Amino acid sequence: MTDLRKTVESFWAAAEARDWDAFADTLADDVVYTLPQTRERIRGRERYVRFNREYPGDWHLRVERIVVEREQAATWLHFTVGLEAMHALTFFTADQEGHIATVTDFWPEPYEPPAGRDHLVERY
Amino acid sequence: MTDLRKTVESFWAAAEARDWDAFADTLADDVVYTLPQTRERIRGRERYVRFNREYPGDWHLRVERIVVEREQAATWLHFTVGLEAMHALTFFTADQEGHIATVTDFWPEPYEPPAGRDHLVERY
Repeated sequence: MTDLRKTVESFWAAAEARDWDAFADTLADDVVYTLPQTRERIRGRERYVRFNREYPGDWHLRVERIVVEREQAATWLHFTVGLEAMHALTFFTADQEGHIATVTDFWPEPYEPPAGRDHLVERY
Repeated sequence: MTDLRKTVESFWAAAEARDWDAFADTLADDVVYTLPQTRERIRGRERYVRFNREYPGDWHLRVERIVVEREQAATWLHFTVGLEAMHALTFFTADQEGHIATVTDFWPEPYEPPAGRDHLVERY
């Protein structure tokens, strides 16, 4: 079984490089991708690779943090599309062979802070 | 040094129980809280406990996933305020005594999926 940290690092490096064969190699055949914000789900390696390959825009990613514990992992990415920058948070689980079995990700957007907490908070 | 998993579990259990003494016990004196979506930052245990204690609404949380690797951790929460449900994603680091030194969290909102991927995706 491959170390899940190496697998998750390969997953993101392959995505950034548009190396879809290397990307597919990190995935279980029956990988399930879930996007809770839109309630979308994609089942199977072929569809999930295609979803990423077809994703529009000149996007680029940088891994800010990876946390791996046995068969599960979480990553925090800094993601850019042109001048727009976002964070992406992804949770992974692996199967017994160390392939990625589930991917669930979240794409939070900037918002204005609510009133009433300026006495505690600084802006950066 | 306390196991960071236990500390993070206590952090969320104490928040849910509004047990602010137990919550404070998980934190380093100089804990730094960061909310990248609003670019807000809170420095120090006293202010950060107060921020949580004063947070409005009858909010409740359930831990969906915890990933811990040595001095860092990530959690995925299901969070409700009345009838509204959200996900919250939080990244932690610990100091050498095992207290929580940094907390960074993200609150993604639902959105409508873009067109052009119905051939790959199911909704749930």
